[in-house]
Amino acid sequence: MTITLDEARRVINAAIEQANENGQPSDIAVVDGGGNLVAFVRMDNAWIGSIDVAINKAWTARAFDMPTKALGKIAGPGDQAFGIHVSNGGRVMIFGGGIPLKRGETVVGAIGVSGGTVEQDIKCAEAGVEAFGK
Amino acid sequence: MTITLDEARRVINAAIEQANENGQPSDIAVVDGGGNLVAFVRMDNAWIGSIDVAINKAWTARAFDMPTKALGKIAGPGDQAFGIHVSNGGRVMIFGGGIPLKRGETVVGAIGVSGGTVEQDIKCAEAGVEAFGK
Amino acid sequence: MTITLDEARRVINAAIEQANENGQPSDIAVVDGGGNLVAFVRMDNAWIGSIDVAINKAWTARAFDMPTKALGKIAGPGDQAFGIHVSNGGRVMIFGGGIPLKRGETVVGAIGVSGGTVEQDIKCAEAGVEAFGK
Amino acid sequence: MTITLDEARRVINAAIEQANENGQPSDIAVVDGGGNLVAFVRMDNAWIGSIDVAINKAWTARAFDMPTKALGKIAGPGDQAFGIHVSNGGRVMIFGGGIPLKRGETVVGAIGVSGGTVEQDIKCAEAGVEAFGK
Repeated sequence: MTITLDEARRVINAAIEQANENGQPSDIAVVDGGGNLVAFVRMDNAWIGSIDVAINKAWTARAFDMPTKALGKIAGPGDQAFGIHVSNGGRVMIFGGGIPLKRGETVVGAIGVSGGTVEQDIKCAEAGVEAFGK
Repeated sequence: MTITLDEARRVINAAIEQANENGQPSDIAVVDGGGNLVAFVRMDNAWIGSIDVAINKAWTARAFDMPTKALGKIAGPGDQAFGIHVSNGGRVMIFGGGIPLKRGETVVGAIGVSGGTVEQDIKCAEAGVEAFGK
Repeated sequence: MTITLDEARRVINAAIEQANENGQPSDIAVVDGGGNLVAFVRMDNAWIGSIDVAINKAWTARAFDMPTKALGKIAGPGDQAFGIHVSNGGRVMIFGGGIPLKRGETVVGAIGVSGGTVEQDIKCAEAGVEAFGK
Repeated sequence: MTITLDEARRVINAAIEQANENGQPSDIAVVDGGGNLVAFVRMDNAWIGSIDVAINKAWTARAFDMPTKALGKIAGPGDQAFGIHVSNGGRVMIFGGGIPLKRGETVVGAIGVSGGTVEQDIKCAEAGVEAFGK
């Protein structure tokens, strides 16, 4: 019930393809069920600030078993999880682009993408999820 | 396609001149294309808390290839990059004063200024950018 | 004078091949000339504690433009760089497995491998260097 | 009883001159009496790993009011300050190249140099000390 490197690479390649379609070089990470990094790529000319963001979007999506976008919706002032992003030593990312990877109902890892708009990042992450789910 | 120490010093001197004009001692940093520090000065009586801020404004402007002010505009609750400032180990600064340094269209480094109001910091950084751009 | 993702992947694939030959699953990282991560893989069953080690072996080899093994030889009590490994926020690795990647005489990045014995890690890193140098 | 930016720059320029004479590009930092950074330069082609080392050699020389080389002599196994370099969050450097800057008998700051051999670093730092002491 974990993720192999072969699977992680398949997920990343699907995300790269989508990023190329978006015309937006991106940073892409896959973590396993322990939240630990399995594979990472920074596409040519993608932001160096997004290395950490992509890895931690993936970590966050696994750590809370939900997309980072969903977590962001409850992290603002007055919300259920207000300020949660300062926990965990700065690893909690609360904007879209991190999505869990599941086998059946079980979260076994996650993908995190950073480099474009949130919409672009999510589209890349979803491409990765789809490639995993087959 | 990188920044020499001579260039970094020219950039910093222009920013110092502007800070003197502002009547506001400031901390000023220049990083190269890898985000690594090339030169730094703290003017007499400038804040010691701004050492880290100036260096990291410069880092942020290079890491995301945009002015820190622009990043700040999308980092609030509900925005595209909500909470991004907790990533990268606390290096992401999201208020004005960090600006990329470019050769043509390529970002090859950045300047970061901290010590006054955001308007003052930006004015100093812009003076540095102009001195670089020749 | 930087490293493309394609190059980083070629380097990593060569190191994976060697790791398979060694019979020792490993973590493998490639950084660019700024010391920033370009690509990373953790082979199936490789240590999660080696994620950080591999990435920082690569960082160290670029940061000091020498193999981590060479740095380790001068980092002990009484040596030239005694205790250097506590600098840079714990990123300085001083045992073998990190090697610079060069174009001609210029260091443009580095590979870091962790997971086996130092001898095995170095062999994998050297396989990566050779694949890069063509 | 502190260090001005003008003084810090004079100190750094003297160290740069010595580094050029050594034929060894170096990272050079000056801190004030509070241990806080006043000015820093990385000469062209100097190590990026030495940014932190130079700054922290300066910090250490002020923090313990002695040259880093002297501290290193008592930091080994069995010595008075065994392992002190893991204190202070990794800021304590215990090899030569950090030297206090004094007015009369009072330490008012320090210079830190990193980039060459310990002998070269010390020579640069001493050039800085001499330039300060006039």
